[in-house]
Amino acid sequence: MIEPIDLAKKFSLFSEHWSPRVVGELNDSYVKLVRLKGEFVWHQHDNEDELFLVIKGTLVIRLRARDLTIREGQFVIIPKGVEHLPVAEQEVLVMLLEPKATLNTGNLHNERTVEPEWI
Amino acid sequence: MIEPIDLAKKFSLFSEHWSPRVVGELNDSYVKLVRLKGEFVWHQHDNEDELFLVIKGTLVIRLRARDLTIREGQFVIIPKGVEHLPVAEQEVLVMLLEPKATLNTGNLHNERTVEPEWI
Repeated sequence: MIEPIDLAKKFSLFSEHWSPRVVGELNDSYVKLVRLKGEFVWHQHDNEDELFLVIKGTLVIRLRARDLTIREGQFVIIPKGVEHLPVAEQEVLVMLLEPKATLNTGNLHNERTVEPEWI
Repeated sequence: MIEPIDLAKKFSLFSEHWSPRVVGELNDSYVKLVRLKGEFVWHQHDNEDELFLVIKGTLVIRLRARDLTIREGQFVIIPKGVEHLPVAEQEVLVMLLEPKATLNTGNLHNERTVEPEWI
């Protein structure tokens, strides 16, 4: 079914942090929504570039050499192989775009690893 | 260079309608920004799904069976092979995500066909 997807409505369906939900698929990629708060873990995606579009709030993505600040209405693309650490001092709402094979923790598989579910 | 991309700033760099600009690339896809106003042409993309995220305004995408209305903060994915006709009664600002091979006019190659440029 081809239907418009409302980001705010989809975000209203969940409240957990660091637990991406799938809201669309195109080509070999998923569109995911995620709520971030606090600090994640350093990781990298060996084979996938990842897009973070900030829908609400301010996201910091730490790289090994410097920090990036991504505000509402901005996106950043983290290329494959680049270590990064997302940090959200206050809650941040993010739309992600990444290949279906992407694991949220990248090269790691630990207690922060979650399988995304469709909403 | 890994840098945040500000959608509003990028939109301020051009005013033409129906002329997508590339603002990012990830995996095999481009992120494009486009200003739409008026009616485009019926077309389909034989091999590529296409995502339209409305940043400002209200977009109508006509399908052969019905019309879709996509408002600010909503996106729609038009699957490969589905004929569609974007219509913007007032100007609409859209973020597109589509494979690099995608032609704006899909299966057609005519006077509306343009090569996207990076901004």
